Amino acid sequence: MKNRLTRRAFIATTAASLVSPAFASVRSRDGALLSLFADDSKGATRPDSQAEPDSWKDAGVLDLSRSPYAKLKTVPVRAVEIQDGFWSKRRKANLGASIPSMHDELVEHGRMDNFLRLEGMSTAPQKGPVYSDSDIYKWTEAVGLALQSGDQPELRRTTEAMIRDVVAAQEPSGYLNTYFVGDKAPRRMQYDVQTTGHELYCIGHLLQGAIAYYRATGDRTLLDAGIRFVDNFLLPNYGPGTNRKGIVAGHPEIEMSLIELYRTTGKREYVDLAGYILHGDERIPLRREQITYMFCGIPFTSRTKLEGHAVRAMYACCGATDYYLETGDPQYWKTLNTLWDDLTAHQLYVTGGVGAREAGEAFGDAYELPNATAYGESCAAIGNMMWNWRMLAASADAKFTDVIERSLYNGINSGMSLDGKTYCYRNPLAFDPSGDWRDHEDPEGRIRNPWYDTTCCPPNIERTFAALPGYFYSTSSEGVYVHLYDNSVMNWRLHDGNGLKILQQTRYPWSGSVKLTVSPATPAEFAVFVRIPGWSARNTVKVNGEPVSGARPGAYLPIRRRWSANDTIELSFDMNTQQLRANPAVVEDRGRIAFQRGPIVFCMEKLDQSTREEAANLAGYTVKPEGPTASRFEPDLLEGVIVLEHPASLSRSAGEGGLYVAGEPSKAAETPTTLRLIPYYAWANREPSAMQVWIPDTKA
Amino acid sequence: MKNRLTRRAFIATTAASLVSPAFASVRSRDGALLSLFADDSKGATRPDSQAEPDSWKDAGVLDLSRSPYAKLKTVPVRAVEIQDGFWSKRRKANLGASIPSMHDELVEHGRMDNFLRLEGMSTAPQKGPVYSDSDIYKWTEAVGLALQSGDQPELRRTTEAMIRDVVAAQEPSGYLNTYFVGDKAPRRMQYDVQTTGHELYCIGHLLQGAIAYYRATGDRTLLDAGIRFVDNFLLPNYGPGTNRKGIVAGHPEIEMSLIELYRTTGKREYVDLAGYILHGDERIPLRREQITYMFCGIPFTSRTKLEGHAVRAMYACCGATDYYLETGDPQYWKTLNTLWDDLTAHQLYVTGGVGAREAGEAFGDAYELPNATAYGESCAAIGNMMWNWRMLAASADAKFTDVIERSLYNGINSGMSLDGKTYCYRNPLAFDPSGDWRDHEDPEGRIRNPWYDTTCCPPNIERTFAALPGYFYSTSSEGVYVHLYDNSVMNWRLHDGNGLKILQQTRYPWSGSVKLTVSPATPAEFAVFVRIPGWSARNTVKVNGEPVSGARPGAYLPIRRRWSANDTIELSFDMNTQQLRANPAVVEDRGRIAFQRGPIVFCMEKLDQSTREEAANLAGYTVKPEGPTASRFEPDLLEGVIVLEHPASLSRSAGEGGLYVAGEPSKAAETPTTLRLIPYYAWANREPSAMQVWIPDTKA
Repeated sequence: MKNRLTRRAFIATTAASLVSPAFASVRSRDGALLSLFADDSKGATRPDSQAEPDSWKDAGVLDLSRSPYAKLKTVPVRAVEIQDGFWSKRRKANLGASIPSMHDELVEHGRMDNFLRLEGMSTAPQKGPVYSDSDIYKWTEAVGLALQSGDQPELRRTTEAMIRDVVAAQEPSGYLNTYFVGDKAPRRMQYDVQTTGHELYCIGHLLQGAIAYYRATGDRTLLDAGIRFVDNFLLPNYGPGTNRKGIVAGHPEIEMSLIELYRTTGKREYVDLAGYILHGDERIPLRREQITYMFCGIPFTSRTKLEGHAVRAMYACCGATDYYLETGDPQYWKTLNTLWDDLTAHQLYVTGGVGAREAGEAFGDAYELPNATAYGESCAAIGNMMWNWRMLAASADAKFTDVIERSLYNGINSGMSLDGKTYCYRNPLAFDPSGDWRDHEDPEGRIRNPWYDTTCCPPNIERTFAALPGYFYSTSSEGVYVHLYDNSVMNWRLHDGNGLKILQQTRYPWSGSVKLTVSPATPAEFAVFVRIPGWSARNTVKVNGEPVSGARPGAYLPIRRRWSANDTIELSFDMNTQQLRANPAVVEDRGRIAFQRGPIVFCMEKLDQSTREEAANLAGYTVKPEGPTASRFEPDLLEGVIVLEHPASLSRSAGEGGLYVAGEPSKAAETPTTLRLIPYYAWANREPSAMQVWIPDTKA
Repeated sequence: MKNRLTRRAFIATTAASLVSPAFASVRSRDGALLSLFADDSKGATRPDSQAEPDSWKDAGVLDLSRSPYAKLKTVPVRAVEIQDGFWSKRRKANLGASIPSMHDELVEHGRMDNFLRLEGMSTAPQKGPVYSDSDIYKWTEAVGLALQSGDQPELRRTTEAMIRDVVAAQEPSGYLNTYFVGDKAPRRMQYDVQTTGHELYCIGHLLQGAIAYYRATGDRTLLDAGIRFVDNFLLPNYGPGTNRKGIVAGHPEIEMSLIELYRTTGKREYVDLAGYILHGDERIPLRREQITYMFCGIPFTSRTKLEGHAVRAMYACCGATDYYLETGDPQYWKTLNTLWDDLTAHQLYVTGGVGAREAGEAFGDAYELPNATAYGESCAAIGNMMWNWRMLAASADAKFTDVIERSLYNGINSGMSLDGKTYCYRNPLAFDPSGDWRDHEDPEGRIRNPWYDTTCCPPNIERTFAALPGYFYSTSSEGVYVHLYDNSVMNWRLHDGNGLKILQQTRYPWSGSVKLTVSPATPAEFAVFVRIPGWSARNTVKVNGEPVSGARPGAYLPIRRRWSANDTIELSFDMNTQQLRANPAVVEDRGRIAFQRGPIVFCMEKLDQSTREEAANLAGYTVKPEGPTASRFEPDLLEGVIVLEHPASLSRSAGEGGLYVAGEPSKAAETPTTLRLIPYYAWANREPSAMQVWIPDTKA
């Protein structure tokens, strides 16, 4: 495909001309790209000869390096190498199967043709829903994050060609969207289109993809296209004031993207615009249902509970936390904590999934957490993790990391098959392949599919797995925080510039033993904050073999001392299997037990049960709380998992016969059995089978 | 409003010219109306001098008098007078408040303007959804059925004026619909419109309304309009064969209406057309989701389970049963019983409601019967009752009457407030007024509202209450069946023409004692089949004071003897309060108990509980199965209801605190209390309050 970059070289970016001196360093780029803008008459970004040439490499998943209200600073993805262990298998599937196959799916389903058509390179009609451009951008973000862990030349070439095709579709005005073109062009940014048309949602994802790609490669091509949209099309025409039209996000996403764009360019207007969008614009008339569903359009700080479309709500919370990290607005912090309390007291599945309802892909009422009909969209669980990552940065409070871990290992991890080629859109906690809860499922009862016409979830999971190294650590003025545990090595630096290497050796999450080897470049006094998971009741921590006291579940244990090369920290967490019970207000979980071991939530699939032939359905099984539970690592099962075995009963008549009986139910037909439980994330990787997380207690 | 009948006198009805001799008697009408058609050049219906002049008065809710596969024949609504007792209050509210206020609501919301506009009598724009005409027709049916219990001159005048306005909007082609007019006229009966446009659904309701009104008054004005639509517009252009276009019902309703039109006119083509529609037309391309949702479009006899939109499915089953009653097709009977088994084994709420899901107003999977999110649309419960009424007629099996009674007393009865002025659209089995399950509810947590833009349910309940006398009895070649119990008097005749009067004296459903006084005009031998409800374990039956054996729960007890005037039957049913438990596969009911006494299902409203101030929410209450339950009639509560009192515990911490805990939940904070339970049908008649039907068992 020919390079059409030069054709667009006339399009100016005005962003850099407004950059404040503090941000000069981030304006660097490689020379080849710079030359494109050399003759830009409107004032192109100029290279700053004082800047560090590779400063774009130092930004993490977010760039919080200058965020005044971020207690924790991110560590670059490239600074952490995840080695052979739990996540390496998932990341290998992500890079080796998921990202390439999703590329092919996107191309096959015309998502690139949508762009090429506008350049006269395709005659295919527009394909996919109104938000289809975002899938390309989110995939690009996944690639960008993946490339931060190491170059993949072929993937990079493919992506850069796609980026060129995307940018070539941008109009001279800066507008870029492949749906609102032709006879739909007059509808652009109309208020009714803003609520449903996803124009700014797409641009938000473009910006995130562009920033990730820039942080991987220094290539600003897509980033500058995003800046052109914002600077040339959006800011002059939309926003507060009588000379501009109003904005409603419709699907929140632009808010966090604008703030990350500010962090990348230093242009403060982006923060202000995000704040304006988070506040809502009274000029735009909205119905109550829209305000609920979209989770935008009224002041974010007037919200008191999570409601409406779960992904929208989570992304809005991400944007609002980003806004807090830059402004410190106490009303935002208060609201964010109110919403977080609502999340964890009323709305969070034990898998870390969120969004109970299929209708509106929405949050339910407090305690409305059905299992079979759970929506738990993969994107919503990811949004939940992204939000908690920002709350963690703002507070250094491990309660947010507990939510990150719960979502990541369970309700997000379940979203991609072990082979990386199929995906769950929704992530229920109970499933019957003969049922028809199949809006996103196939007729044979397979809940995982390689493609969805609304394919938001697959690239969202891809970007999350690709970003994973960036979630392992943070730094603060006091030292370094250790959030996640897996075999890995970090090579980064403390705030004073002292280099720091941390080696993790562990079989986490199967084992609760973790050995950290801490090696500062120069011996120095600082704190290593090791996370004690909330689920771990009993913990031991040793430094160089000597016990350290003070470990509390759900808190970071600061180990302040003078560290020298090859100092060790040994952590031992409580890996006893836990029987979880839900608040009695969760009606579907009443009298039921869920099993959790370490961060892993378990489930039973019917196909693993020795009595599967005798059971009409899973309703006949009840577990004996007294146990005992046996756990065993099975290396050949589901790429290697711990399996739990637990005593249970099977009532063969359960699930048969009439709906209602008067008096006590008969217990005559109960036979003892032993349940086999597998990690929830690994369900639905074999033939379709009934599954449940919450299993009735024999006593109930 | 001026009488525009003469303006339409030129419109011919061709129906009567094809009537078979067996049906001659039903062609009678009053002379005034006949004269309208005296100069009809296309062949108007001619009076049959041999016919009984008032034969239209003898038809019941259905006219099964000549249906060859109806074991039971209906008894006219007008032949049964419901006297002071349980239903008289509901029927008084229906006639005195509901029907008049709904008239005003319909007019106020432009539903009559839709017709008047087409006659140049209104300039108001089209109002309401595409199916809005049906609301007028269903209301007309309610009036027609109400007038069968006695003339209401003002109501009759109002309705006849409305009927004239409706008929005046009919086009010369016979087409009648106020939505597909003007620039929408070209879309009429297009295949995509047939699936969603409700044109035939509206005409089905027109026919039902017209037939009810005709059976009340002999007035054929609306009936002839319906016949013109079918004979002049539909039959010549749509149906099987290469010279006609296909039909898909879209929303089943036309099937049962066509068959009732056949029963009213004798024109067999209507049955054939209904059969064709029930079979589906392969020429019309439909997606799998449409076939599921619409419950039509493929052969009815290929269905194996209830699914999709619940009202559509129930109406389809009504039509299919009507088709069986006329044709005896064994494949239909087999399918209907398969579907009925699915209903009662997997899909029926304990309240007799059906349709678990808000999404698509649909049936769920087997055992998917959530409580708070239950949809249980009033219309679906009514459709369920209508279907079971037809199954009962085909079989004389009391298992169908048990479903009728369960729906009628509970899930239908709940649909209209005690004062007759507000309605439930959905009928959940648990409710929290602070929740947001409010698609059809108001922001203050009131689930009952006077008006819905889709106002299908209110007139549906009105027609059901108005028709109620017609559901009390049937006749067969062997005698008379007694289905429902309430103070009432029947004046009708046996098949041999012998007059029969039955007086019922009872406080049913509060009391289980019913006294029937059976008075044939001439002493004769026949059977009185008294229904022993399925919920009544122990029963006594006496005739003239002498015990009769053989009563079995859920069966009709035939009492065959020579009956003379003032013979008595005394029935005594088991009114012990029953604790119902659901099949363990119903996840939300697991470990929970529902209370039923006689046919009445109970619930708890928080406002009745002495501990309401201490309870965070209803999740804290658990009942002690060992009881005892006390029952007491409270004449001043909710227009007089039995209240149950049952020992329980309140855990004050339940519903507070976190979502998940490891290990056994604490039971420390439990305090004993006594629950007050009211009949489910009477809930939500005071201030908004939390409610639940299924209450956790203390042991769970």
